[in-house]
Amino acid sequence: MNAKQAQKDYLEFYSKLESYGYAINLISFDGATEGPKAAYEERAKAMGTLLTEIHKMTTSDAYDQIIKNLENNRDKLSPEFKRIAAIERKNFDLSKKIPTEEYEEYQILCSRSEHFWEIAKEKNDFKSWEPYLEKIVETVKKFGKYYGEKDGSIYNTYLDMYEEDANVTQLDEFFDILKKRIVPLVQKIQNSNLQIRTDFLTRPISKKAQLKMSNYVLKTIGYDFKRGMLKESVHPFTNEISLNDVRVTTHIIKDMFMSNLFSCVHEGGHGIYDQNLNKKYAHTPLYNGASMAFHESQSRFYENIVARSKEFCDLIFPKLQKIAPKQLGDVTNDEFYLASNKAEPSLIRTESDELTYCLHIMLRYEIEKKLMSGEYAVKDLPTIWNNKMKEYLGVVPPTDTKGVLQDMHWSDGSIGYFFSYAVGNAYSAQIYNTMKKDLDVASIISSGNLKPIKDWLKKHIYVYGSLLKPAELIKEVTGEPLNANYYCDYLEEKFSKIYNLK
Amino acid sequence: MNAKQAQKDYLEFYSKLESYGYAINLISFDGATEGPKAAYEERAKAMGTLLTEIHKMTTSDAYDQIIKNLENNRDKLSPEFKRIAAIERKNFDLSKKIPTEEYEEYQILCSRSEHFWEIAKEKNDFKSWEPYLEKIVETVKKFGKYYGEKDGSIYNTYLDMYEEDANVTQLDEFFDILKKRIVPLVQKIQNSNLQIRTDFLTRPISKKAQLKMSNYVLKTIGYDFKRGMLKESVHPFTNEISLNDVRVTTHIIKDMFMSNLFSCVHEGGHGIYDQNLNKKYAHTPLYNGASMAFHESQSRFYENIVARSKEFCDLIFPKLQKIAPKQLGDVTNDEFYLASNKAEPSLIRTESDELTYCLHIMLRYEIEKKLMSGEYAVKDLPTIWNNKMKEYLGVVPPTDTKGVLQDMHWSDGSIGYFFSYAVGNAYSAQIYNTMKKDLDVASIISSGNLKPIKDWLKKHIYVYGSLLKPAELIKEVTGEPLNANYYCDYLEEKFSKIYNLK
Repeated sequence: MNAKQAQKDYLEFYSKLESYGYAINLISFDGATEGPKAAYEERAKAMGTLLTEIHKMTTSDAYDQIIKNLENNRDKLSPEFKRIAAIERKNFDLSKKIPTEEYEEYQILCSRSEHFWEIAKEKNDFKSWEPYLEKIVETVKKFGKYYGEKDGSIYNTYLDMYEEDANVTQLDEFFDILKKRIVPLVQKIQNSNLQIRTDFLTRPISKKAQLKMSNYVLKTIGYDFKRGMLKESVHPFTNEISLNDVRVTTHIIKDMFMSNLFSCVHEGGHGIYDQNLNKKYAHTPLYNGASMAFHESQSRFYENIVARSKEFCDLIFPKLQKIAPKQLGDVTNDEFYLASNKAEPSLIRTESDELTYCLHIMLRYEIEKKLMSGEYAVKDLPTIWNNKMKEYLGVVPPTDTKGVLQDMHWSDGSIGYFFSYAVGNAYSAQIYNTMKKDLDVASIISSGNLKPIKDWLKKHIYVYGSLLKPAELIKEVTGEPLNANYYCDYLEEKFSKIYNLK
Repeated sequence: MNAKQAQKDYLEFYSKLESYGYAINLISFDGATEGPKAAYEERAKAMGTLLTEIHKMTTSDAYDQIIKNLENNRDKLSPEFKRIAAIERKNFDLSKKIPTEEYEEYQILCSRSEHFWEIAKEKNDFKSWEPYLEKIVETVKKFGKYYGEKDGSIYNTYLDMYEEDANVTQLDEFFDILKKRIVPLVQKIQNSNLQIRTDFLTRPISKKAQLKMSNYVLKTIGYDFKRGMLKESVHPFTNEISLNDVRVTTHIIKDMFMSNLFSCVHEGGHGIYDQNLNKKYAHTPLYNGASMAFHESQSRFYENIVARSKEFCDLIFPKLQKIAPKQLGDVTNDEFYLASNKAEPSLIRTESDELTYCLHIMLRYEIEKKLMSGEYAVKDLPTIWNNKMKEYLGVVPPTDTKGVLQDMHWSDGSIGYFFSYAVGNAYSAQIYNTMKKDLDVASIISSGNLKPIKDWLKKHIYVYGSLLKPAELIKEVTGEPLNANYYCDYLEEKFSKIYNLK
């Protein structure tokens, strides 16, 4: 078979997978937003069936042959198709290792676990979810054995799935730099005598007013509502249902309006990435972010570097005041800016500040490592969690809802994923450092028209889709490999200024 | 293979189909409500792929064998499985006749046509949709030839698909009775000098207030929001996504609040049917309404017989006044009741009154008949439509939006379906006549607790699912076959009273 036919066959196959993916994404989005809770069993069943079909297709001999046909024409393939063939070969070889029946059972388990996690979180009842998490961890380990160890551990195998070539050695070093440079900074700030006004942060703001804020900030950063939508969910997320349908969610907590605000910008950052990928790669696996961490770099870039800047706070706060005059009328732009950047150890990862955020990730990374190695048991997680919180952050969650139950990730089997949040943060600062050489970012934000920022990201990052490996892309964009020091520089500069540190 | 294994195999197969159906229903619901318009191509493709998969499965040799295994054990099957085998054999033999590729193309065509119909309706531009409808009609005819004629025409073949054993001979007679008894009634009413106050009907009411009304009436009739939801769409519809997820839609037009109100009750009637089917039949094709017309009998029963009764109007109007005091404060219960029942020839089927409604259906039935026979051409439809409107109803649509473009049905290929609305109306009155022997319906409505009505319908109709053919079910419930005279009796009694006719 010639290269042209091989590519055609591949694209036809991918097109079918894409339709299944569409359905699964929509069912998942619906289930997490407005779909009736009463229908969770049927939803889990439908998802399970479709995921199983995908699994069957992507582990079929026919698919193997389609990839082989690409590989056999390797010399005649475009760089894009070379990359596609490599991605597909890796995925095929991995997924081939899981027996279809076990995979199917696991998908149903994940849907159920997610459902019971939601209830457990609501009711602060870890015990009711524990058996599901037990089974999840057990299965992840079993599947890890099927996949095979990488560099001596199955945890590495999972890390590499979320970020190509990531491993414990590299990440231990990475977190080490962060720890060494951030921990002293956190301490200095705790000793600072800066008084940040926070009374207005807990003033209740109606859902309607908060949704107005959500819409406003999402539009301001450049999220396209005509090719997506905003809904509410327990945990905010972004879901690319199709090329022209990238949805984001937020959570509205009446007496925590900033949580909604920055969740929107965060998910909006993910959404903008997906809405502005290179159309040339549409309907191929290259029409994707470069990696989980790269995706996170975009959400964190918008959330922290853009939206928590003085210029952005000055830009949006007058509008927020108009939306909620009673609650925000007596607050100055400066007070809003400082409150947006208040750094202190806290309980909830998604609510935590830029400085302490990575400590939350470190905790999860360590727990995962030891869950996988068998040093930790699921039943002990609440205690382990609380002990580590005390050790790293000096605070202890009063409930599991605010502790081990806070994140949905483990509920759907996403073990080995958390670290990418920290790497994403580091990428974002490294990218920002490069961007500033081309753009006067502060002036652009002040102008209220943020399009030049989106255009720069589009030109330098989004355009590549997942053509390059993340390690290649960060080098392509910034001229050097991942370097945690840019993030530390950024934090030092910003927080020294805010807290008047010497 | 023994009966037990045959049944087990069948249920497993059906379970898979059901998951695909879940996805398709959700994609369709999403597309018609809040899904981005910009994503219609991707949506059409995803739907097309999944429908094609269903088509492949339900025309496969494996499926044929599964049905044969049931048939071979016929004597040992329960009455339920006998019916299932009969339904499946009929569907299999029909769908087997359409080549997969042509079916796939057709599904994509339908999705596109629906999209362009929506735009054409919005812009009053029949021409822009015409080529899609041309292709739809052409394909329906071609598929009709594949299916084969029934009693001398392919239109009969389609009628039978929507209502088992329905045919032109029977329907011509049916419509003849309606015409003979209703037309004189309409004339008497047009000559009546009753003045019905209508000024308040066009007072603008905000979307928010109208949605409050929607929620209130749906709850009042017994629609279960925990196992469904209400959204807006261009044309209201009901979608059973799963056992515990039956969704309804409405349309909000600011200066036509009654349109929203009765659309909600109408779709609520469909929804209540689907929400209260016999759980014993869950995950089989018997977990369905008995037929399109039976489904319509339930929506029309709630919309007209319940919601347009004096008792229901008295019950809900005080609440509606509270929701919109400015617009409804100066209106009496009686004025609301009379306005809800004002009978006069009008343009829009879904807005038309009980009396003239069947004339709208007759018009569509005649057009379909002649479109199928080739006597009418698609390009002439706007003119034909307008001429028939003048002839039967004495009114001519000023735009195609209010004429031939008003209904979505033909846009997705649902030709042969309209008549079931008229038969549904007739069923509803025939059922009501029986129900009144058991229940004091008026007192129950006045009490505000309508549960006894739902329970009666559940016990006498919903419990059967689609175990019985519609003709068998109407006999089972009312003791006799479809009889158009009950509907005519009901209309004569009600409208003679309202309009003080002799």
